[in-house]
Amino acid sequence: MNKEKDLEIMRHSLSHVMAAAVKSLWPKVKFAIGPAIENGFYYDFDFGKEKVSEEDLKKIEKKMEEIIKRDLKFEKSEMKINEAIEREKKSGQIYKMELIEDLKKEDERKVSYYRLGEFEDLCRGPHVAASGKLKNAGFKLTKLAGAYWRGDEKRPMLTRIYAVAFASKKELEDYLKMVEEAEKRDHRKIGQDLKLFVFSDLVGKGLPTFGPKGAVIKRELERFAVDEEIKRGYHHVVTPDLAKVDLYKKSGHYPYYKDTMYPVMKIDEEELILRPMTCPHHFMFYKSEPHSYRDLPYRIAEIAHQYRYEKSGELSGLTRVRMFCLADAHIICAKEQAKQVIREVLELIDFANQTFGMVKGVDYRYRLSLGDRKDDKKYYKDDASWKYAENVLREVLKDVKAPFFEADNEAAFYGPKIDIQVKKANGQEETAFTVQYDFVMAERFELTFTNKEGKDERPIVIHRSSIGCLERTIAFLIERYAGAFPVWLSPVQVKIISVGESHIEFCQKLAGDFRGEDIRVEVDESNETVGNKIRKAVGEKAPYILVVGDKEMGSKKLAVRDRGSRETREIEKDKFIAEIREKVRSKK
Amino acid sequence: MNKEKDLEIMRHSLSHVMAAAVKSLWPKVKFAIGPAIENGFYYDFDFGKEKVSEEDLKKIEKKMEEIIKRDLKFEKSEMKINEAIEREKKSGQIYKMELIEDLKKEDERKVSYYRLGEFEDLCRGPHVAASGKLKNAGFKLTKLAGAYWRGDEKRPMLTRIYAVAFASKKELEDYLKMVEEAEKRDHRKIGQDLKLFVFSDLVGKGLPTFGPKGAVIKRELERFAVDEEIKRGYHHVVTPDLAKVDLYKKSGHYPYYKDTMYPVMKIDEEELILRPMTCPHHFMFYKSEPHSYRDLPYRIAEIAHQYRYEKSGELSGLTRVRMFCLADAHIICAKEQAKQVIREVLELIDFANQTFGMVKGVDYRYRLSLGDRKDDKKYYKDDASWKYAENVLREVLKDVKAPFFEADNEAAFYGPKIDIQVKKANGQEETAFTVQYDFVMAERFELTFTNKEGKDERPIVIHRSSIGCLERTIAFLIERYAGAFPVWLSPVQVKIISVGESHIEFCQKLAGDFRGEDIRVEVDESNETVGNKIRKAVGEKAPYILVVGDKEMGSKKLAVRDRGSRETREIEKDKFIAEIREKVRSKK
Repeated sequence: MNKEKDLEIMRHSLSHVMAAAVKSLWPKVKFAIGPAIENGFYYDFDFGKEKVSEEDLKKIEKKMEEIIKRDLKFEKSEMKINEAIEREKKSGQIYKMELIEDLKKEDERKVSYYRLGEFEDLCRGPHVAASGKLKNAGFKLTKLAGAYWRGDEKRPMLTRIYAVAFASKKELEDYLKMVEEAEKRDHRKIGQDLKLFVFSDLVGKGLPTFGPKGAVIKRELERFAVDEEIKRGYHHVVTPDLAKVDLYKKSGHYPYYKDTMYPVMKIDEEELILRPMTCPHHFMFYKSEPHSYRDLPYRIAEIAHQYRYEKSGELSGLTRVRMFCLADAHIICAKEQAKQVIREVLELIDFANQTFGMVKGVDYRYRLSLGDRKDDKKYYKDDASWKYAENVLREVLKDVKAPFFEADNEAAFYGPKIDIQVKKANGQEETAFTVQYDFVMAERFELTFTNKEGKDERPIVIHRSSIGCLERTIAFLIERYAGAFPVWLSPVQVKIISVGESHIEFCQKLAGDFRGEDIRVEVDESNETVGNKIRKAVGEKAPYILVVGDKEMGSKKLAVRDRGSRETREIEKDKFIAEIREKVRSKK
Repeated sequence: MNKEKDLEIMRHSLSHVMAAAVKSLWPKVKFAIGPAIENGFYYDFDFGKEKVSEEDLKKIEKKMEEIIKRDLKFEKSEMKINEAIEREKKSGQIYKMELIEDLKKEDERKVSYYRLGEFEDLCRGPHVAASGKLKNAGFKLTKLAGAYWRGDEKRPMLTRIYAVAFASKKELEDYLKMVEEAEKRDHRKIGQDLKLFVFSDLVGKGLPTFGPKGAVIKRELERFAVDEEIKRGYHHVVTPDLAKVDLYKKSGHYPYYKDTMYPVMKIDEEELILRPMTCPHHFMFYKSEPHSYRDLPYRIAEIAHQYRYEKSGELSGLTRVRMFCLADAHIICAKEQAKQVIREVLELIDFANQTFGMVKGVDYRYRLSLGDRKDDKKYYKDDASWKYAENVLREVLKDVKAPFFEADNEAAFYGPKIDIQVKKANGQEETAFTVQYDFVMAERFELTFTNKEGKDERPIVIHRSSIGCLERTIAFLIERYAGAFPVWLSPVQVKIISVGESHIEFCQKLAGDFRGEDIRVEVDESNETVGNKIRKAVGEKAPYILVVGDKEMGSKKLAVRDRGSRETREIEKDKFIAEIREKVRSKK
């Protein structure tokens, strides 16, 4: 038995149950379609002039429970296609009619119906045998949404009712809890609450502004990546955000990425374009002087601004933006060095992931993304190189005992890649970082090195991101930490609260001492009560809160309240500063 | 007597002497114009089919010396304009003819000629009385260049002979020495020699790529500015590189800066444009939440990418580029706070300048750049605000005893400014940083704060750059240090040289120890002789060179050769590391 398939049948059967419930409540309703989807199902209805609101969902759910209790059979019948058209026409079910007419165009001669009590619906099936089989299922109608008939904005707007559904009530409960937690952790919500970033209509869609607090996180991540990469032998460069279109024509990116690139800008005799990726710039830099085998692997890295045109409907917080910052690199090496280079890159990514407290195999795993030899529109045609490169990646993953799976048709156009798949707060998996094997670009850009025999040789290129696209990584980290960042990333590391007017000066002096030690500090000297100020500070999630009143001003020690604790501890200022600095140093 | 005027007369008289010399050597030459310019003069000639090369310059100089020795008088005569036209036509002097025809169109009736021996030239004068007066002058013909007649590329290409000229031979000598030194320090040359940055035709004009070594300097400068500004209460933000055109229409920048902005990019329903400045982004961020007088002055800073379309003929190394990084900030404050804010900004700029070893009044001075009340096309019309703002800036400059001068018609369109004028290696002065008083933008963007009385009040804005446009600042610093950067900015702080094959491993281990202490190090393990390697290392200008052979491997101390010294000194590794770290910490 296939559990996934069973779940899909159950979800789809529930959509019939929902349609039957809706029919009994709104007899004039018109039906469109009702498929199973990830985590549940939906059904699209045309309620005509009748008003249906979120409050009605409970009512529908109740009706659904009744139908399930009645244990009605799903009874299949068949009908000749012209009769079916006639029948739907008569009953005014114009959407069903259109669906059947389309089937007719595809030369279908018969259609099947499924009856569930008084409700009969055009359907291919399959379903559970009877509604009683659904009694253990956990389901919940979650929301109403507008949806154009057939997704076409020129066709009528229907009402879609979404539901989540699982095999058991317990699974539903777990899912709802996870969703609730994910919503609490939603980076857009926390981003606003903690004033990390804002969007502005006048600036433009998908173009975030990091306020001082969000900018701290971005800056710390950038410095972390740059400093760590330099230690590991990367050459960090700075290349321009734009280039002549010719550069992307030469690289071959232009035909593949044209649709997601910004429009061309004509300047004098030149046609310039914002870059969708950094590779060609790095190749041109490599070419600016000759290289010998001694220089290889030559690791060129950059925290690079990149620009991609994303449709406005696809923009979402920091995860999908129109301009982003990538911790990018291109490693130019001899073919024989590829394995070692990829291993080093995976080590670096592991190191970064560990720094973010992620456990391999639990919080992230690897996807070996393969090409498709038959699709030479999407993938560069060179079967031997594909085979060789895919094997190299597979062998490295096996060598380092990486938890990985393989996925067809997910490669880049110039070669296969390893995607580091990270589990998000909502349980979904997302590609956060990639390591790509490229056997095309070195040829296109005529990259060479002098080998030991003094002859010109063609290298290969490994494209990689270490901590990925900073905007997305920040979104991910906000959700991972639910805004309670480790000390090294915390926008405000120490929050100082003055009890009264007479303590402000002392607080400011203390804050100055911290700042002198490069500790990020904020003073709340507002007129509110201490209780309110503490509550506010707790909400802001600073790792340390210091309340300063008469007692604290008289003491040689500081009274520190650690995040997550309701107690205060006493500690000498120097020791406290050393503690924070050590946490920052060790990225805790 | 006016020294500047005398110098100009002397230079212009020399251009006649040069023309006379050329005439005697190439009797068929045609003459265009020969004005005095900064540091000298030029004359444009049409040599027809005759070839003239740089080698001929000495010959012309010699002839000029003869003419000066002959002490010929500059004899003035006048001629009716039609006669003059006829005369030039007859002698085939088509350029002079055209000049006279133009004078005729301006209703001139007579023209004047100056005779110098056998040579007579159309000229307004004045000149020195006789060529003998030029005997003390120091002059030198420097180069030949092509120049279109009247600067019009559709007209004939003439041959321009450039010369430098000063009142005395000594002054000429000093000037030539300075030029020679400036050429040695030219950032384009040093940038190439030290591999700091490259340009590529395929990437595009005016778009530099910083290699790993140049990127070090840029990164250190950025971190210096960001960390220092945060200590001084700035809020560092990150805003997008582009925005809707509407944003720049609202700010009013669009009409003023349109010609130097990149073209508009249409994306879906939006018209986006690369930003020529950061102000509107910062204003939108300020507006993202309400502010009270307690928040003011509110200092918003950013290391911001900016994009301006510069004509390709105006591009020059890193000093004039099409994309740059500005250490930018906008300080929003109450009108009464302006003086204090400007004073703080000047202090920050002084601090940065001191860090670069610059002395106020010697290496830099201040220009108070004023508006023009009559020009309300170029300057926002608000006489009272101009007067107030100009006074505020003037008073601050006086209060802090800044060495400053005033310049008309140099303000921004939204208010007057203080320009920090820095002396470059070639002796010329350049605006490096600015502090601008803006009484327009707060109104346009409806910026407000709640004052002590709980009412909305309009702030003013101070625009400022601290360490300026990083590309230009890097160009300036390259020339200032002639590539021998202080330790904290040096791309390679320690250069290790292995004497032989057997010392390489030890050198690499030593390099690893330095890297672990965040010291930038490079090992030369090539097969060349130690002498050659040292010469190369000296040319690369690393502050410290370590030669490692058998003796050094056996010793507990390091043998360090300081930049500029031919001696080595012995020092323990820990002490040496501490020495470097202290230099980095104190920006030496």
